[in-house]
Formats: sequence, C-alpha cells, structure tokens
Amino acid sequence: MNDRTDAITALETFILNGIPLARSMNLSIASYDGDRLVMAAPLGPNINDKGCAFGGSLASVMTLACWALVELACRERGEDCDVFVGESTVRYLAPVWDDIRAEACLAPHSSWKTFFATLAARGRARSHFRCFVPGQAKPLASLDAVFVAKRRAA
Amino acid sequence: MNDRTDAITALETFILNGIPLARSMNLSIASYDGDRLVMAAPLGPNINDKGCAFGGSLASVMTLACWALVELACRERGEDCDVFVGESTVRYLAPVWDDIRAEACLAPHSSWKTFFATLAARGRARSHFRCFVPGQAKPLASLDAVFVAKRRAA
Repeated sequence: MNDRTDAITALETFILNGIPLARSMNLSIASYDGDRLVMAAPLGPNINDKGCAFGGSLASVMTLACWALVELACRERGEDCDVFVGESTVRYLAPVWDDIRAEACLAPHSSWKTFFATLAARGRARSHFRCFVPGQAKPLASLDAVFVAKRRAA
Repeated sequence: MNDRTDAITALETFILNGIPLARSMNLSIASYDGDRLVMAAPLGPNINDKGCAFGGSLASVMTLACWALVELACRERGEDCDVFVGESTVRYLAPVWDDIRAEACLAPHSSWKTFFATLAARGRARSHFRCFVPGQAKPLASLDAVFVAKRRAA
C-alpha cells in the first residue's frame, strides 16, 4: 500500500462513517490520481420509481466526488481544512440506467497552484470544479460547483 | 379525508416505495395547498460529518419537493405525466443544524395557467420552480430548477 492508497481508504471510511446517506447509497472511491477522482455507487440503492438513477443520488455522488477530490488534495499537502460546497448547478442530460460513476476534476481555467497559494496566503481558498457521469457518447449528467477550503484553527 | 389529503398520502407512499433513498432520508410531505408544497426530513439520517445537514440530502429534499409539487398539480387536473428535472442550481447559504424543511413553489413569472395550457396543446410543458430551506432571518439553502412534464402515452 502506498500513501495515496491509504489516504483514499481513510477518506472513504470517513465518508461512510460520518454521512449515513453515503452508506445508504453504498458509495466508494474508485480511483484518485491527484487530479481526477472517480466515485462509484451501485444502481440498486440509488434507483427511482422509473428504474433509473434517482436525481438526488446523482447530485449527491457528483457533489461528494468533488468534495473528496478537494479533501484528498488538501490532505496530501498537509492542509487541515474544512471543505464545503458553496453553489452548484446540475444538468440531468439523460437517464442513467447503470451503476453510477462520477468523475470529478478542476474546472477549466482553475489550478491547484492558485488554489493552494491562496490557501497559504489567506487561510481560505475557493475554486470551480466539474464532475460528470459519463455515457456512451456524451455525459448523462454534469455538475459545476464552487468549493471552499478553510484552514481549521490549529 | 378530502381528495387533496388522499392525493398527498398517495404520493408520499409512492415516493417512499419507489425511491429507496427517500426512505433512507425519512422524507414526508408536510403540506400542500395547490401552490406551495413543504417537504420535511429529520436531521438524524441526513446528517454529515460536521453534525449539520448533508448537502446531498438538502439537494435531494429540495429537488423532490419541487417534483412532488408538479406531480400533485398534474394529478389534481387528471394529467397522467412523467415529471422530471432538467437542470437545477443549489445555493448552500448556511449550515442547517435542525430537521430539514423545504418549501417549493413556482418561480416568479411562471404560472400554472401557462404550464397546463402548454401541456394541453403540446403534450409536454416545462417551467421554472424555486425551493428554499427557511432560516431565522433568511434561507439556509435554495434551489432553482426547471421541471418538465410529459404526458404518458394513453
């Protein structure tokens, strides 16, 4: 096990222990490479009355995928922060008939370098993030969100 | 029991039976008067690691409150429709430390009259809706969303 694998496992445990609804959704972190985080959730507990993924589950998984990306990026750099979402827009583009897979990354024109420089200077930083649920040809759902990281008092 | 009370109870049962996550959230329809629908969910199953309401629960409850409003408005008029969300923006304005209460209504400049006239003419209509989680002085969270109703094939 390397440090990154340990960090992913620790954060997944933290999410499942701290957020009962994440347990109900049966969330997991499928991968994280420093820039992109993939979160997964089986269709079963996240289904709606039409037999496809419940919109609330899609929004929750995409929001948590971005949140987990920011958390891990902070933890890797030794930054102890509260990370929270400020505003987000979800587009429900097509029904999701399979297990949910959400891929989160920084939005275009955003950078970790700027984010962590601001955090170092002000103890607080915000950035735009993007997440989508991939489909065969194009995304089935997308999220654009602003997340804030705020250093905890030592 | 009047017709509206029956309709509210029937829709609540439909939601809880059809959407496992709604059961996990312990959702209920607190009231509906034809123009405004209030959905409730206790904090317990919807808590996050910080001890306040999980953002995914807030987004889900506000989305479902609008969805239920449109469903009930359709059912009252004898319209058998698929109702779904197209796009939504959530603003997380302040932490929610209590049970969740979400109030949904038509957005300003939208009207049921136009909505149902369009549905009658085209078999499909869309409108803007707004939902918020009220706080002491101002909302703790808000949602602006577009919902679509589409007549089911007879």
